[in-house]
Amino acid sequence: MLAEQPLTAVLDAFASSDPTPGGGSAAALTGALGASLLAMVAALPRTKTGAPEERHALDAARGALLRARDELVGLIDRDAAAYDLVVAAYRKSKTTDEEKAARAAAIQDALRVATDVPVETVRACATAIDQARAVAQHGNPSARSDVAVGIQTLMVAVQSAMFNVEANIGSLKDPAIVEQITENLRALQRTMQGAGETIFKDANLIELYTNMAKRLGSTHGPRSNAS
Amino acid sequence: MLAEQPLTAVLDAFASSDPTPGGGSAAALTGALGASLLAMVAALPRTKTGAPEERHALDAARGALLRARDELVGLIDRDAAAYDLVVAAYRKSKTTDEEKAARAAAIQDALRVATDVPVETVRACATAIDQARAVAQHGNPSARSDVAVGIQTLMVAVQSAMFNVEANIGSLKDPAIVEQITENLRALQRTMQGAGETIFKDANLIELYTNMAKRLGSTHGPRSNAS
Repeated sequence: MLAEQPLTAVLDAFASSDPTPGGGSAAALTGALGASLLAMVAALPRTKTGAPEERHALDAARGALLRARDELVGLIDRDAAAYDLVVAAYRKSKTTDEEKAARAAAIQDALRVATDVPVETVRACATAIDQARAVAQHGNPSARSDVAVGIQTLMVAVQSAMFNVEANIGSLKDPAIVEQITENLRALQRTMQGAGETIFKDANLIELYTNMAKRLGSTHGPRSNAS
Repeated sequence: MLAEQPLTAVLDAFASSDPTPGGGSAAALTGALGASLLAMVAALPRTKTGAPEERHALDAARGALLRARDELVGLIDRDAAAYDLVVAAYRKSKTTDEEKAARAAAIQDALRVATDVPVETVRACATAIDQARAVAQHGNPSARSDVAVGIQTLMVAVQSAMFNVEANIGSLKDPAIVEQITENLRALQRTMQGAGETIFKDANLIELYTNMAKRLGSTHGPRSNAS
């Protein structure tokens, strides 16, 4: 498992001329990092007001974040394996008509998996983004830059996974499968719609942006959504 | 060194209730991942047209990306060490006036380092984003989702590092130091201004966004810049 190797070896694997691990695995790793950071804030002994309900809410959020993180760690390898399957399918023999048909079917099966895996990455990140709300509301305010980094990192993981869906979905030939995957993504997008923006506003994280923009004399706002 | 530990242990360290490694280290790790992914595309045997100049340009880009990556790996630990120094300074004894003055000076020194480290992260990411242009222009077009993920990941690393500058810079009391750090950031921002957008447009990466947006029936565009 890639995640059991030293971080430097993992980065070397991403940087090597071998196409896997590639962008889909990077999306999963990025999401796992964002979820870990939010889990850290949820674990800090101090909460916003010290009320016991806050501790309960943060403990529950931490549990869900760690589960999403573990799933994302698994998706690092699953994405690489899915891409390797696609390559193997394209390399199948195509001399006879029978071989050609078998090869075409194997390619479609492999592409289906390679498209489903980044959808799972989006799903796990959406779960973590959902938990970010509780962390931003109840967590220690002195860790708000960690919360902001965690949310942004999860949002870019979603975007990265979406790129990987898009890189494969166009080669899928069954319109029913394409429609099903697209509907899954639409549903996930609805759950995330505006989540990042809302959390940033509610938890005063937006100040980090506006203060920095004022300091640098620029007018850029945050990314307004997770897709 | 954190980066010599298995990836799962690194993620556990981010998720633990210990505040370090935190958002600043996460920014550096995110940047290292984005740079690695672009270095992979630069290493692919096939280039866009196969011209020897393309190979030279990609080899040069790969060298610079790997140097930026190595620097970012070092910044994962440097950020954690800087934060630990700040905490140690705040814990210094403050019984006598002399002790109070020494503590205040130690806090300012430590905050200075804790602000400079994420500026270095922004600098290393800016170098990598600069190299992304050559990779997007000359790299194998079949890896364009990897290029898109690499650039987005570097841009969010910049944003994350900026949050960490902002979390510390407000506590720095010497206006000359604040102005110097701000000027460094402004200069870096100028080098990145519009870089992401330009690269996405030039290399037709923008299609990944527009196709996905059309598929999902949404109107969201890419992040328009790196800050």
